Order: sequence, then structure tokens, then C-alpha cells
Amino acid sequence: MLVVMRMDAKEEEIQGAVRKIEAHGLKAHPIPGAQRTAIGITGNIGIVEPVLFESLPGVLEVIQVSHPYKLVSREFKPETTVVEVGGVRIGGHDLVVIAGPCSVESYEQTLRIAKAVKEGGAHLLRGGAYKPRTSPYSFQGLGLEGLEILARVREELGLPVVSEALDIDVLDQVAEFSDMVQIGARNMQNYTLLKRAGRCGRPVLLKRGMNATVTELLLAAEYILDQGNDQVVLCERGIRTFADHTRNTLDVSAIPAVQRISHLPIIADPSHAAGQRDKVVALSRSSVAVGADGLMVEVHDAPEEALSDGNQALSPGMFVDLMVEIRNLAPVLDRGVPSRVGS
Amino acid sequence: MLVVMRMDAKEEEIQGAVRKIEAHGLKAHPIPGAQRTAIGITGNIGIVEPVLFESLPGVLEVIQVSHPYKLVSREFKPETTVVEVGGVRIGGHDLVVIAGPCSVESYEQTLRIAKAVKEGGAHLLRGGAYKPRTSPYSFQGLGLEGLEILARVREELGLPVVSEALDIDVLDQVAEFSDMVQIGARNMQNYTLLKRAGRCGRPVLLKRGMNATVTELLLAAEYILDQGNDQVVLCERGIRTFADHTRNTLDVSAIPAVQRISHLPIIADPSHAAGQRDKVVALSRSSVAVGADGLMVEVHDAPEEALSDGNQALSPGMFVDLMVEIRNLAPVLDRGVPSRVGS
Amino acid sequence: MLVVMRMDAKEEEIQGAVRKIEAHGLKAHPIPGAQRTAIGITGNIGIVEPVLFESLPGVLEVIQVSHPYKLVSREFKPETTVVEVGGVRIGGHDLVVIAGPCSVESYEQTLRIAKAVKEGGAHLLRGGAYKPRTSPYSFQGLGLEGLEILARVREELGLPVVSEALDIDVLDQVAEFSDMVQIGARNMQNYTLLKRAGRCGRPVLLKRGMNATVTELLLAAEYILDQGNDQVVLCERGIRTFADHTRNTLDVSAIPAVQRISHLPIIADPSHAAGQRDKVVALSRSSVAVGADGLMVEVHDAPEEALSDGNQALSPGMFVDLMVEIRNLAPVLDRGVPSRVGS
Amino acid sequence: MLVVMRMDAKEEEIQGAVRKIEAHGLKAHPIPGAQRTAIGITGNIGIVEPVLFESLPGVLEVIQVSHPYKLVSREFKPETTVVEVGGVRIGGHDLVVIAGPCSVESYEQTLRIAKAVKEGGAHLLRGGAYKPRTSPYSFQGLGLEGLEILARVREELGLPVVSEALDIDVLDQVAEFSDMVQIGARNMQNYTLLKRAGRCGRPVLLKRGMNATVTELLLAAEYILDQGNDQVVLCERGIRTFADHTRNTLDVSAIPAVQRISHLPIIADPSHAAGQRDKVVALSRSSVAVGADGLMVEVHDAPEEALSDGNQALSPGMFVDLMVEIRNLAPVLDRGVPSRVGS
Repeated sequence: MLVVMRMDAKEEEIQGAVRKIEAHGLKAHPIPGAQRTAIGITGNIGIVEPVLFESLPGVLEVIQVSHPYKLVSREFKPETTVVEVGGVRIGGHDLVVIAGPCSVESYEQTLRIAKAVKEGGAHLLRGGAYKPRTSPYSFQGLGLEGLEILARVREELGLPVVSEALDIDVLDQVAEFSDMVQIGARNMQNYTLLKRAGRCGRPVLLKRGMNATVTELLLAAEYILDQGNDQVVLCERGIRTFADHTRNTLDVSAIPAVQRISHLPIIADPSHAAGQRDKVVALSRSSVAVGADGLMVEVHDAPEEALSDGNQALSPGMFVDLMVEIRNLAPVLDRGVPSRVGS
Repeated sequence: MLVVMRMDAKEEEIQGAVRKIEAHGLKAHPIPGAQRTAIGITGNIGIVEPVLFESLPGVLEVIQVSHPYKLVSREFKPETTVVEVGGVRIGGHDLVVIAGPCSVESYEQTLRIAKAVKEGGAHLLRGGAYKPRTSPYSFQGLGLEGLEILARVREELGLPVVSEALDIDVLDQVAEFSDMVQIGARNMQNYTLLKRAGRCGRPVLLKRGMNATVTELLLAAEYILDQGNDQVVLCERGIRTFADHTRNTLDVSAIPAVQRISHLPIIADPSHAAGQRDKVVALSRSSVAVGADGLMVEVHDAPEEALSDGNQALSPGMFVDLMVEIRNLAPVLDRGVPSRVGS
Repeated sequence: MLVVMRMDAKEEEIQGAVRKIEAHGLKAHPIPGAQRTAIGITGNIGIVEPVLFESLPGVLEVIQVSHPYKLVSREFKPETTVVEVGGVRIGGHDLVVIAGPCSVESYEQTLRIAKAVKEGGAHLLRGGAYKPRTSPYSFQGLGLEGLEILARVREELGLPVVSEALDIDVLDQVAEFSDMVQIGARNMQNYTLLKRAGRCGRPVLLKRGMNATVTELLLAAEYILDQGNDQVVLCERGIRTFADHTRNTLDVSAIPAVQRISHLPIIADPSHAAGQRDKVVALSRSSVAVGADGLMVEVHDAPEEALSDGNQALSPGMFVDLMVEIRNLAPVLDRGVPSRVGS
Repeated sequence: MLVVMRMDAKEEEIQGAVRKIEAHGLKAHPIPGAQRTAIGITGNIGIVEPVLFESLPGVLEVIQVSHPYKLVSREFKPETTVVEVGGVRIGGHDLVVIAGPCSVESYEQTLRIAKAVKEGGAHLLRGGAYKPRTSPYSFQGLGLEGLEILARVREELGLPVVSEALDIDVLDQVAEFSDMVQIGARNMQNYTLLKRAGRCGRPVLLKRGMNATVTELLLAAEYILDQGNDQVVLCERGIRTFADHTRNTLDVSAIPAVQRISHLPIIADPSHAAGQRDKVVALSRSSVAVGADGLMVEVHDAPEEALSDGNQALSPGMFVDLMVEIRNLAPVLDRGVPSRVGS
């Protein structure tokens, strides 16, 4: 931490700041400059809030230097974590593709789409049983019935399943029926849910909040790791900006930024970012090229009848084309795309 | 809803779109223009998703016209709702001031600050027992003990109490010990929590999410009203933008925007927006002047020792000055500030 | 400047960084901490770019401490500057109101509106002769003819005139015909224009760019002061955010933020921020209450026939009401509103 | 245009709106719905401002339907434009790479870097002679001398040259010495400069403003085309958002969005978006994969001594690696990368 004194700070104010720092058991390192003095602070800074020094006489501002995350940091664990979901490894050499409908609508719909994405080469099946909807009058998901459908389809096709846990009430249920528990963007700072996810015994897919910085995303993951669960995959899904040509702005640069700081794998969800299917394929290529460890895309075989987010769903045919493009891209990027899995 | 055809759409494409609209039991109203044709749609549009028509041949885009909220809308209930919290009325002629520490830290601290804000003229006491913190290593609140302290202080001073319900596990507890349940900004789209708040039997203070539009804020409130609870007060607390001179950008224009569309009262929280105490008083004046129905501000008598957000807390002396300013402003704005309440 | 070393930086890397700092004639102050070492730098830092040290082995990041502005800073000139425009003083005790049409459309229109705003109590007349328009097919202003109309109206009514200089070609012309030269938001970082405005011999009204930080706004003003012109008034006019209920988000907190750092006066333009007249009065009150030194508002007597931005123009009657509100607010804020000026 | 009436609008208000529409020579198409009536408007809408109808009694809002651009639109010219710069074609099958230093600092530096980027495979040389700098105290470019250096280097190496025209004073100079004139992000809405660029006789590289929507970018280009110059290449270079892990957020989705609406080619500038060299290569891959027609990157052989933006410059070695990656990517994307050009 660095305490920056005002240009006109008096010597006694500087000494006062030094004494105050030392009174907290910390060490003060005054750095007299041409224009002003700054005071470096060392010691057990973790528990010190800047406010301790900000209101002292002669102080201009306090700058925090140390980084707030530990367990998620590459400084603590240099090698990238590989997360294993029902036999599929995320974060290693191979790219992983998660695909499926936005919502589970019926057994038939789910099976049909799951067969199509498996045929296309998807490694994991996604499908929402509990849906966060902006309006209370929109379809809210089939709930437990949806989870049972997913489990049944997994049984039949051998595709591991990812589904969102909307709240702590249903987290255990989702963990029971799915291979990976998703925490959605709107819940990225639902700390109770994060803590429970850290104890749920399943890998977690944590989506970046629409207004979350990379630091906040990593601190949200830190909540999960702090509970003993290091099987966390992050997901960039677009941030909210002034730009109006996509629903959200896919921030591809967050992917190398996360990879530099953290050892956790990170994938991209171009469907939610784009909000329109015609940009999903281009953004998928873009995400893989920037270094994402995988993709999550929505697929529907009758998008115009989908009960949620039909606009952004790829048709099975478009998904097959997408997989062809990803398979072609992968070797150029020194990545692989494993053949389809399951029974 | 309006379906806009491409300039080069063929007559048969226009007819196709009309037939598709009618096939959904809706009525199509083609509007042939100089450059292109648009097709107005009427009927039971509530359940129609734009995607139904967006992928039809010849269609350029689909524009939604109807507004998605009902119960919160001034079109449905013209007069402003007055929410009553322990005898204090929010949304009427009088401005209401909610003040207190960010976190409840101890009985002594809470009582001391509560006495100071009551003395200064606050109408309600705020204090967090459950705290949403970006880092898992920050102070997370005293929990139940904090609620018991609040209840004890309310008993002694007669100030009704507002406290945040961080999740559905503690909502009933918070509702039992407090007079008003706060839903924080990070939880504005925690729909399970909103639904429960709609059935908790207490007035609700709903804070705008850092990246929520006014429409989304109102739809979040709609979740609460839809469960039968119309005692909802909204709160503008700053949005996330590129601007870095305050922690968040207080969007004062959201206040008249909400008041135009909705009958719910709305207050401002300048403390969280500013993030620094030196701007809290100016932003408080600004919020009241734009038409807010009240303020929520943080006060601490030893900010440099506060366990959370000390930077933004007013000292008791600054709070007294603020109340003097608000009392002077109110009559100019045709508002009143009731004398301090309680025993 | 502070060079933060990686946690695993070796002693020789720290020594290497120290030597590199000293090789640039600067002084290095190593601060060994519990987790990592930081190195404070003092000396003539003004000319040093962080990149000098960022790529050294063992360096995590470089943090800049010193502030980049000089002439605009309150550290250099503590007392607030008062800018004088045709006898009207901006930045002193009195609030100043600038009003008039968005565009000068004709002599009759300008005279009519000027009379109305003078009658209502405006101190300066605004009117655009050169208009920055998003589309090339929108009305671009009357140009020189518009300036001549403004000058003629000033002659008749005695109201000093503010008009925008769209580019360096017309800057001298605008300076000749007007009492104050406006630099618009889109030109806030048009550095050639800023430099010329610094030598134009007129006070300058500098509007904040839609995506400018407070630091960038002050550095843009620094360009003008650096050329010898310290008669600069800043103007907050809304920033671009995701919020869609107003055209731009009026960032009222920028006003106290600027006032803390800089000695330059600052006013608000609620018309451009709101984009709709029904919020202009509320945002005007809000701006004055937060501490603005004045307002600039658009007024039109036939908004539905205005050639630009009619949506946001107040009618003369609304302007009179606004002035009544401002006159009532001013004394509560220890400000005055001088009676109307001129012949 | 669509006029949406309030739910409680009276029949006479609807009739009043219809009459008002017709009084402007337009045709009104009332669409009575279940909840409210909307009125479609057709005719010569181009010149109609929404305000004409927004303030009529009973009107809730006015929605614009028609799109404001013409010459840049793919509806008017379906095939993609190919822009030719000194023999290099941008917008066709081949990817084009523009590389060079941020600023021209000396003949030796420019020649050295130009040789390196030519060797690496760049098709065009970039270099700033006039630099827009946030602070007046930063290096502002060598001006005419810089242009002369660029021209001399072009002569020697045969690489066509791109340089920024900072203002209308130097536009002709830049057009004389360069093969392509760049309009920078801060000048994207400098309409006088755009108009002159439309008459300068050179292809134009138009960078997206940091806060510009895709619509505004296209309308800025429309200014240039409207003056008779259709040789315009657009450039995505990052937008300003709350995200702080890169200097700006590279909005890769703008590339397919522009390509859908407009026939103009579009390239990406990952250097300015990233602000740090370690992300430039990843963002370059990402931009090419999303469909960009080329790249503009900064290269410096002594980044730590660069007079501007050294942080983001690639070393010549990194540039060579980047070109290898791009050459590998291109065929997968059905694009080519022509061998190096020139003498």
C-alpha cells in the first residue's frame, strides 16, 4: 500500500502518517520526491483498509498495491488446472464444446437436440432446468422435471450434463442430477451460492457477471476455491456496454487476461453475448483463436418455438458447420478437438 | 410488435410473413412505405417472442413495442404508492432519511451511531448483519447476532430498522428482526430471493443493480409485486461506467425516469455511489433536488476503524450538517422533512 | 512511480530494476514487503514512461502516482477562477444561466427566443451556427449567417453570446462574433482546436466528451491554459453508458470531482444529457444542488419545428418556471442568481 | 416511423395524431391493438424528426424504423468494396497487415522498423507524424519532417504508407505524402475533417471512436462517401467500457456487425485496444478469426525508448511470430496472405 501525501503536506503531517502506520503494526517507508512524499507500507497489509490513512491530515490518496486473490492466482499455482467433468477434461490441450438447448422443454426436445449435438461432436450437453428470466411472466424452466429429463438423456447418450443452479435451494438437486453445476452471470456475486458451490462436490462453471471486472470474476472463483473446490471453469459471456449491435459485448481480451493471472481454465459463451445466431459462429472462432479452452453454445432444432432465447440458438446444421470450423482451427492453434464421446 | 421487411423483400415474402403472423392467431397490418414495408402485429402479443418472425425470408428486423411491466406501471396505478415502515411513510410529501453504519459491528457501536443519527434527524436506522463482500477474506457481517443487536437498539430508541437479506436462507430471519428488508444491488436479479421477498410480509427496499436498466429494475420489482407485496421502495445507488472519479456513477436521471413510468417510491444511496465521503453531501442534495423520495446514507463515528466501507461513511457531525441542508432544501421542492421520530 | 516486483522475483532482478531506474537519472527506493518488493521512484518523473520498467525481468506492474495536470490544478492555484463573459462572471458566488435555441435558424426565431430567455432571466444567449450532426443529411447550421444573426440579436438585447466553433477554419470567425467560444463534446480531444482556442482571445466553454474521464477533461483544458488562456469554463453534459432512459447519463458527481482537483468553474448542460425536455428541469435542479456554477439549457418556442434537437428544448414557459425554481434554490445553497442583464 | 399511443389515449387523440401526420404530407396507418393503438407512418420520412409527434396528447413514444445511412449500406451496394492503397487491395480475399511504429521518431528508427516489418511480411507501413496526445506535455509528433521521413522510407522499400491527419490544416499534407489517410478515433466525429477527407483524393482509414456505436461509425463514413470518396476502410480499435484489464475493450463483434450492414471493408487494431503487447498477438488472431479484412499493429525495435505508446508495441521478433500465426490461420478461414510486396 502506498500513501501519497499532498504537495503542500507539512513535515509533521508526514511524521503523523508514519506514526499512524506504525501504530497498526506496519512498517512505513517514506519516499521523499521532487514534488511530494509518498510512504510505502509493508507488513501484514491484508487486513488493512485504505480508510485507515485516507483521512489523515496531508494525505492526498492511498493506492493499493497487493492483489486480493490467492488460491486462484498463477503466482500460487503456476500450472493450468484441468477440470474433469464426467471424463471430459477442460483446461488441457483439447478444446471442449458444450452445446444444447437454452431450456429443457420436454424429454423429446432434449433428446432430439442432444442427439444432434452429440452427432455434431459436442463433448458436454447443456440445458437449463431453472431459468433466470428478466420478467416474472416469462417461462421459468421445468425445474426438477427438467433435471430428470437431462439425467435420462445422459443415460441414453453418454453425454455428461451441465445445468444452472439458480439458488441455494436447488443447488444440491442440480449437483445430484448434473455432472457440472453452472453459476449464471446474474449470480456471479451471490456469495452464499458460491460458498455452497464450493462444497457441492461437483465441478463448477462460473460465468462472468455482465458488469464484473476480471478481478471480481477471480474473487468470485476464490469464494469457491476457499471452500475446498478447485474444479472451477470460468466463462466469458459478454459484458454490458453502450454498444447496441449485440446483446452484450463479448470481451475476448478477458480470456488472455484471466490466463495470465489465474491457473483456472476459461471458456466462452458467444450465444449469450451475441443474442443473434448470425454472429455466434464468427464469435466462436474468435474466442477459440484468442485462446479459450472451449465453447458453450445454444442449439435448438426449432428456434422459433423455443421457450427462451430462441434468437441466439444455432440450428443443428449450423452447429455441425461450427464444429467443422473449430476442428480446422484447432491444429493451427496447437489445440485438439477430441472425437465425440459417450456410448 | 413491428416486423420490418428488407428493402428488397419480394411481395411473396411479405405475404409469407403475414401468413406466419396470422398462423399464430395474431393480426397482421402491412404498412407499405416508400422504401420498405413494415408489418404491425396486434393481438395477444404477450406470449410471442420476436424470433418467431426474425428468421423469415425478407425480414430485416423485429421491433418490440409493448412494455413488459404491469403491476409496477403508472399506466395501471396512476397514484404514487406510499410504503409504510414502522410508522414512517415513504413516497408521500415528506422526505425520508435512512442512516446508520454499513455493518453492525457491536451493540455499543450500533447504539452509539443510532443515537447520533436519531439526534441528527434520521427516520430509519440502517445496518448490515449479512454483508456481500467482493473478497471471501473481507468481514462478512455478524449474522444473527447483528440482527439481534439491531432489534435491541430499535427497542431502546424507537427507530425502525432496515437490513439486507443476503440470501433466501436468512430472508425470514431478516424479516423477523427488521421493519424493512433490503435486497442489495448484487441481488437485484436473484429471482428466487425476489419471489420470497414478495411473500415475506415486510416492506422491501430494492436497490438497482450496478448494470441494470430502469426497465430491468422495474421488472425486478414486478417479481415482488407479482407475489402480492406492493410495499416496495426502489433505490438508485450508482451504475458502473468508465468514469473513475467515483466508485459508481450516481444516475440521478433514473429517479424522474422511474417516477414517470412507475408508481413506486424511489430513494437514493449516495454513499455507495460516491465511495468517498467528501462527495456524499453534494450527491445527497443533488438526489433530493431531482425528486428522490428520500436518502440512505452511511454514518460511522470512527470511519477509520469501520470493518467495511469506512471510506464512504459520514461522521455524525457531517450527518447533522447534511440534515440541516436537506431541511433547508425540502420546502423549496415542496417537500417536508418530519421531525425525528420514536420514543 | 512505483515498480511492483513479482512475488517470486529474485534478488538480482530487484537489483537490476534498481540499476535501470538509476541509469535514467532517477532515485530508487526499494520497499521490501512480506510478500513482494516494490520500488518507489523519485526524481524528474515527468518525462518517464512506465514502459521503461514494465518489461524488466521480475516486474509485475508499474503504478503511476503523480498527476499529469499542472495549470488547471488547484494544487497550483487554490482559489477558484472567475471567468468573465461580456460582463457576466462565471465561477463566483452567482449562478449563471445560458439559454437559447440549439441552432440559429433565422433572425426572427433567434430574436424571439432570445427575448423570451432574457425575460425569463437568462444571463447569456446560446445558439449554434455550426452544428456537429451524426448524419450528413441533417441540418448543419447557417454558418456565418447564423453568427451575424447572433451578433445582431446581442446588439438589440444586450445579452452576451456563446456559440460553438466546430473546427479551426471557423474558430476565429466564432471568436469575432461571439463573447464566448464553445468547444463541443465531440471536439474535446481535437487538440489542434484546443490549442487555437487557447490563443483566440475569448473565454472558452469546454464540454466534457461523452467518454472522457475527469482527468481527460482537465488535460483538454490544460491544452488551452498552456497557450496562455485561463478563461475556461468546463461543462458536464452527460456520458455514454448502457443506461437507455436518457440520451446520456448526466454525471453530476463530476462537478464536485472537478471542483476538488481544479480551480476552473464548471456548469451543467442537462438538455443534451436528458435528450427529452420532461427531465431537463429536474436535472437542472440536481446540477445546481450538487454545486454547478451555472446551467446551459436549450429553449425553443416551437420545438416541434426545430431543425435540431427539438425533443430536448424547453418552451419559454417551462424556462420561466425553471428560473423560478433556480432562484428559489440558490439562497439555500449560498448562491445568488443576478437579475437579468443588458439594455 | 411508429407512433405508440398511451393505453388510455382517447379516440380523439388518436385522430389528432393521424391528422398531424397527414398535415406533414405523410401517410398514417393506425394499428389498433389489444392494449393500445400504434400508428405506422410512411412517406418521405427522411426529413421528419420524431419530436413532431412526441409531444402530441396521448402519445407514449415514437420509434424510428428506417435506417439513416445510404451510401455505406449493403442494401444499396451488395458486393463488398475493395479499397486499393498503392497496389495493395483491402477488402478482397487477402488479409492485409499494416505495421510500423506508433510515431515516426527519426529516419533511422523508421527505416529500421520498416525494414523489419517488410521482412516479416507487412503490406503497408504505418507511422504517425501528427500525434493526438491526452496531455499537452507529451510528444506531439515530428509533423512535416515525419511525413518526409515516411515518404523517403517508402521510396527505399516500396511499402505504401498510412499516416494520420490530425486536423484539416495538415490533411492535404498527409494526403500528399501518404498513400492512405488515417482519421483517428478521437476525430471520428470531426465532421469538417471527414468532409475534407472525402475530397482528398486518397483512400481513408477511419477508426471507430471509443464511444461510437456501429451506426455512428457508419454515419461518419457516410460523410466521406457523400463527398464522392468511396475508398474507405473502417477500423475497430476498442471501445471504452468499465473493464480495466485492457486499455480499451476490443469489440470483435463489431466486425461481423459492420459487414452485415455495410459493403465497406473493416480491419482491427489490437495494439490500441490492448495497450499491452502481451495481448496483441492473441487479439490479432481473434480479429482475423472473426472475419476482419486485416490488421494494424504497432511495432518498435526499442519499445522502452518509444516516444509514445511503447507499452503496446511488438518487437520485430514478435511481429514475425504474429505473421506466422496469421499465415497459418488464413487458409482455415478461406483467406490468403500475400507475400511481401515492394521493391
